[in-house]
Amino acid sequence: MKRHIRLILPIITKVDGFVDGVAEFENDDFKIDAVNIDIGPSSVENEIDEALAATGVILKAIEAENEGVDAVIIDSCGDAGIFPAREAVSIPVLGAGQTSMHVASMLGGRFSIVTVLDSVVGLFEDLAKKYGVYDHLASIRWIDIPVLDIHKNLGAVKQKLAEESLRAIEEDGANGIVLGCTGFIGCAAFIEKLLKSKGYDVPVVDPTTTCLVISQGLIKLNLSHSKKMYPTPATNKPVIGFNLPLFEPPVQKLKAVK
Amino acid sequence: MKRHIRLILPIITKVDGFVDGVAEFENDDFKIDAVNIDIGPSSVENEIDEALAATGVILKAIEAENEGVDAVIIDSCGDAGIFPAREAVSIPVLGAGQTSMHVASMLGGRFSIVTVLDSVVGLFEDLAKKYGVYDHLASIRWIDIPVLDIHKNLGAVKQKLAEESLRAIEEDGANGIVLGCTGFIGCAAFIEKLLKSKGYDVPVVDPTTTCLVISQGLIKLNLSHSKKMYPTPATNKPVIGFNLPLFEPPVQKLKAVK
Amino acid sequence: MKRHIRLILPIITKVDGFVDGVAEFENDDFKIDAVNIDIGPSSVENEIDEALAATGVILKAIEAENEGVDAVIIDSCGDAGIFPAREAVSIPVLGAGQTSMHVASMLGGRFSIVTVLDSVVGLFEDLAKKYGVYDHLASIRWIDIPVLDIHKNLGAVKQKLAEESLRAIEEDGANGIVLGCTGFIGCAAFIEKLLKSKGYDVPVVDPTTTCLVISQGLIKLNLSHSKKMYPTPATNKPVIGFNLPLFEPPVQKLKAVK
Amino acid sequence: MKRHIRLILPIITKVDGFVDGVAEFENDDFKIDAVNIDIGPSSVENEIDEALAATGVILKAIEAENEGVDAVIIDSCGDAGIFPAREAVSIPVLGAGQTSMHVASMLGGRFSIVTVLDSVVGLFEDLAKKYGVYDHLASIRWIDIPVLDIHKNLGAVKQKLAEESLRAIEEDGANGIVLGCTGFIGCAAFIEKLLKSKGYDVPVVDPTTTCLVISQGLIKLNLSHSKKMYPTPATNKPVIGFNLPLFEPPVQKLKAVK
Amino acid sequence: MKRHIRLILPIITKVDGFVDGVAEFENDDFKIDAVNIDIGPSSVENEIDEALAATGVILKAIEAENEGVDAVIIDSCGDAGIFPAREAVSIPVLGAGQTSMHVASMLGGRFSIVTVLDSVVGLFEDLAKKYGVYDHLASIRWIDIPVLDIHKNLGAVKQKLAEESLRAIEEDGANGIVLGCTGFIGCAAFIEKLLKSKGYDVPVVDPTTTCLVISQGLIKLNLSHSKKMYPTPATNKPVIGFNLPLFEPPVQKLKAVK
Amino acid sequence: MKRHIRLILPIITKVDGFVDGVAEFENDDFKIDAVNIDIGPSSVENEIDEALAATGVILKAIEAENEGVDAVIIDSCGDAGIFPAREAVSIPVLGAGQTSMHVASMLGGRFSIVTVLDSVVGLFEDLAKKYGVYDHLASIRWIDIPVLDIHKNLGAVKQKLAEESLRAIEEDGANGIVLGCTGFIGCAAFIEKLLKSKGYDVPVVDPTTTCLVISQGLIKLNLSHSKKMYPTPATNKPVIGFNLPLFEPPVQKLKAVK
Repeated sequence: MKRHIRLILPIITKVDGFVDGVAEFENDDFKIDAVNIDIGPSSVENEIDEALAATGVILKAIEAENEGVDAVIIDSCGDAGIFPAREAVSIPVLGAGQTSMHVASMLGGRFSIVTVLDSVVGLFEDLAKKYGVYDHLASIRWIDIPVLDIHKNLGAVKQKLAEESLRAIEEDGANGIVLGCTGFIGCAAFIEKLLKSKGYDVPVVDPTTTCLVISQGLIKLNLSHSKKMYPTPATNKPVIGFNLPLFEPPVQKLKAVK
Repeated sequence: MKRHIRLILPIITKVDGFVDGVAEFENDDFKIDAVNIDIGPSSVENEIDEALAATGVILKAIEAENEGVDAVIIDSCGDAGIFPAREAVSIPVLGAGQTSMHVASMLGGRFSIVTVLDSVVGLFEDLAKKYGVYDHLASIRWIDIPVLDIHKNLGAVKQKLAEESLRAIEEDGANGIVLGCTGFIGCAAFIEKLLKSKGYDVPVVDPTTTCLVISQGLIKLNLSHSKKMYPTPATNKPVIGFNLPLFEPPVQKLKAVK
Repeated sequence: MKRHIRLILPIITKVDGFVDGVAEFENDDFKIDAVNIDIGPSSVENEIDEALAATGVILKAIEAENEGVDAVIIDSCGDAGIFPAREAVSIPVLGAGQTSMHVASMLGGRFSIVTVLDSVVGLFEDLAKKYGVYDHLASIRWIDIPVLDIHKNLGAVKQKLAEESLRAIEEDGANGIVLGCTGFIGCAAFIEKLLKSKGYDVPVVDPTTTCLVISQGLIKLNLSHSKKMYPTPATNKPVIGFNLPLFEPPVQKLKAVK
Repeated sequence: MKRHIRLILPIITKVDGFVDGVAEFENDDFKIDAVNIDIGPSSVENEIDEALAATGVILKAIEAENEGVDAVIIDSCGDAGIFPAREAVSIPVLGAGQTSMHVASMLGGRFSIVTVLDSVVGLFEDLAKKYGVYDHLASIRWIDIPVLDIHKNLGAVKQKLAEESLRAIEEDGANGIVLGCTGFIGCAAFIEKLLKSKGYDVPVVDPTTTCLVISQGLIKLNLSHSKKMYPTPATNKPVIGFNLPLFEPPVQKLKAVK
Repeated sequence: MKRHIRLILPIITKVDGFVDGVAEFENDDFKIDAVNIDIGPSSVENEIDEALAATGVILKAIEAENEGVDAVIIDSCGDAGIFPAREAVSIPVLGAGQTSMHVASMLGGRFSIVTVLDSVVGLFEDLAKKYGVYDHLASIRWIDIPVLDIHKNLGAVKQKLAEESLRAIEEDGANGIVLGCTGFIGCAAFIEKLLKSKGYDVPVVDPTTTCLVISQGLIKLNLSHSKKMYPTPATNKPVIGFNLPLFEPPVQKLKAVK
Repeated sequence: MKRHIRLILPIITKVDGFVDGVAEFENDDFKIDAVNIDIGPSSVENEIDEALAATGVILKAIEAENEGVDAVIIDSCGDAGIFPAREAVSIPVLGAGQTSMHVASMLGGRFSIVTVLDSVVGLFEDLAKKYGVYDHLASIRWIDIPVLDIHKNLGAVKQKLAEESLRAIEEDGANGIVLGCTGFIGCAAFIEKLLKSKGYDVPVVDPTTTCLVISQGLIKLNLSHSKKMYPTPATNKPVIGFNLPLFEPPVQKLKAVK
């Protein structure tokens, strides 16, 4: 029986051609699909976006578990809603940011994040601290292009990513690169090649595809996040504004009362 | 002219008698009021509650700034929505958890958090890491009473808090205590007294009232959080499910489209 | 009844016009005065000055407590004598350095200290380590003007402070500034304005006034440093060279025998 | 074409039945085999064993790369020879210890290692420091059974592992368990079940199988360790005692001269 | 020519028999003597004592350098006045606490301090943080006997030291012991023997004698502390209460004016 | 009776003139000699060299202890084989890297390592982490000259070392320098002098000679590494490829079987 991985895009924007990048990770063992959240922002570029996206992510994680999905990936480097979603379900919930940072730490000690805008620098610093990988973080650099503009000129995006990656290596002492936006999918090979032409053979970690293979691994191992760290909450209390079907299919469907 | 501080309770539950605890911090210079959020959970005891509360907090922070409030306090030790709210407004946004941890660090090096349930232990560990005070954290202890049951038997709550505080001092090396729930308001004096009777004269930091005096101080100093760390986001992109009046009164009222 | 805060200037130099800067923090609730120490250096710019000032600070803290003062502030960023003074008395003892560093940490994650001379760089590094805020410290910069020359050309001082603050933000990744000398009182607004004109809206923490509001807050909360961390010493042993009236009014006035 | 993963057992002991544990990770895409080292110890239980094993591991890593293997796993929690092997080859070299610690960090914040003997406690502490995951390490516990005795009474081993894991959770605050010996393969499920019966649903990370799935993932991603961090050494210098065919097939076969 | 090491006892108490313990470190190359400070406390057991002792230490360090002494040792585990003394002179200034902690770190990773009273626990924690060896500190334990009572019953002192050292090893994970009081000179051998009889062969670092050999080493290497970290202060400013002959023999003998 | 210190050069290369540099540390109390390892690399410049050298170091440490040597020094900044050698013997085993880093930490807080090639940067970062002195490490710089070329133009080496040391001080905030190669013996004085001419009086720590004096000190103190941290391994198991005479003179001489 095929196992099922679902990417939760914590945005309301339909991303064309997304399937192309992940299709090669499907095989006889694994089916992959992707869903947008129903409520939330059109892109995730700051803490407000993270907050607006979190509830949508929780809902989609619950939906996924109810549908028999085997693992979900929050397909955004800010990992919107990762810890509450881990509380809500027992299937593995991976975040593109956390997973990439640990993989990069493992492969080269110190890494730099190259991302979209300087507005997320503080956000990534906080994530690295929260995940306990701050000592591995060499620097955070950005290309000054908003998420929603990435596909307007992908060539320029790749070039700028490669340039900032090169600076991270030469000026900040990075031994590896984490692409700090899932919108950069498909760019890693170009960057690696350019860096190699400068004499630097370093891992360039693409967040989405890295999560895909790690989630496949966790499924095979029957391994998930700790429910001691992220315990399933009790649900016998009212909530307003969100219709949260926790622990379906039993009982107390919490209605928005507002 | 009186300056105005607003407590944002990141819950939908009306808390009777709350005003009593904070009234003494009002004076000729400062007016204090408190509001519930309109959408969110009835108590905050886990990461899901934090996520559900965040949007409500952002909305109330924007409302407060628009009404001329001078500082807002997120009156919950998990600091639901603190960083997005800091992005949304320029007036100081304090969190009960972060503020208490820094004050306790300043007064005694290592502190323990005594809280409601073991389900929030991981949450507080993550907060301490994110705030950069993890080395100051001696331990986290809990009394095994849910938030909404605190006022059912306040005497027992105080007694248990004092007992766990004593253990934190004697077994975990704590030099001070942070009360890990704003619902414990009014309990600090009892705990201090009991600890003193055992020979320990240590600070017992009550989160709400600590935030009140710190926010009064920041207002006097005309000091707020860093907008470089928490930059005001651009708002020219659609959001579904939340009606977020950022940067009123101009233009693009973001409507829930759903 | 008015509560009473005393600034202890850990120097023997009379500072004209000092009262101006703090007067606005007096009100119906709080009286503020300032005293010099009787023995010690004329300015604090290195570890020797810190050591020479410490005893004078202890004496003034004891005197203050005996006179019914409610909190004392060591008005120097090196916090001369802070921990021994905390042992000597039970009223809150705040240090300008420690307090500013924690407030800056709370408001923006990473801060830079901008101070007088490079001779205090090591001293501040050690303080940040001792206070457990080293991870928050982005950099230490200096304007190369000794303390006692600050008021000879305050305009140039302000300009240089603003320039180094700008460099701290742009080159060192600081999200906030701590003024590393209490002699810089009155400079914060100018620096904030200049930084804002460059597009950086960040907190510029003035040490003295920050301590004033925090001490007012601690008094209201009836909160002081941990006597477990800073225990009152036994006094039944001789001391030479210092006349230390610990725990007056009883008995064994320790006389200098020399 | 099948990709090829090779387990390097950094010991000279043939392990019967080893194939059983890993066979289920073979499929249409991946072939897995295992080799012993030719020179080295019969088990790895201390720093001397690690040192004796390292050269054998380097040789087997070079051999694997020369034979077209796609990734190698050092199948021992001390990761004998991991960094030199990474210098020697460009295909991914994973260590059972490092990989498990990062996966456990990702799944639950703080983990405990449960291992064979107290003689390796210091060794694991050093590894956790070197890998930058020391803050994630809750404790190290042991069952007091040497590696070579594990299979003499596997039932008792499982029982003791479960007991120490339970203590790690209840007494040391662990949110997950890393099995600190690859000889424990096949024990994780029993431990998980026992812990669940006590109310703890936590990940129990088996080192070998975890490495297998992570290495499969890295191969799919075409991702390897950083050659900037682990650069290929120059080889124009003599070596005595080891016949190290670095960078075959060219030239200067380094002969043992002794 | 014999080189000259001077122990500065940062107390006013004459210690009988002290010479015995250090005499064996004298030889054809090294002369050792010891001086009390002229002003300060009779023992060092808290931060106030540290502060009272610092000036006396600075004076004795200057005196020593003027007399041609080659290195000074502050013979107290709190290292009273170490950093100001390093500013005052160019000859090496070692502290018993700092030196012991680094030697213990080097010999066994994690160490425990066993000291006199619980009143110095916070003090040692702060020192370990300031010196950057906090991660090496397994625990701090005490025998509850004041410094001045050590020699009243040295047998009991040794026994208690050994017992607490044993607990540090078995309960706190220490791999070595630092004796946390220079008054414990002569006790290390007894403790080592008792620990060995329990199966623990660990270093027991005696602070005074450790400083003696390290200072001999630094003298041979012509190596001293960094004057960039501890710069010589300018002296053209008045001081009251201390007659500090800095940089003799020139000019501006700073007189106590009081 | 003379005590005996042995330098173990973890290389097979005979170093002419080496004796000159260490001869001055011999005296009536101490005899010093040096041995090469019998199997291993001709220089140590990467992790492979470290691994190839380790067994040779263990063998020479055992040989030294058997011959009555009182302490051994691994004369290479990578400390090849230090921890296994500590397991193998009870006499003190010092590493040039670890010892220098701790001494530099003690003398000036933050230090930079100036070494031969950029290929060892990652190696030194890992060492600093493993030894727990990472926070003291200001930077790692290199002169781009391989170990075996040092003596081809010692003048240029000294000049480059001084230049990089100067940069470390002025650009990286170092307060002291650790020479990151034992081949730099005899260079420290030149560097110190050049730095002093630029106004920087900082310690330049030469690894070999620093180890010599520290080992002399440990011998006098009868102090060695912790056998709890580095326990003597059991030897009742076969090894192939190495003839390791552990625990002579008894029994089970482990033969290379290959």
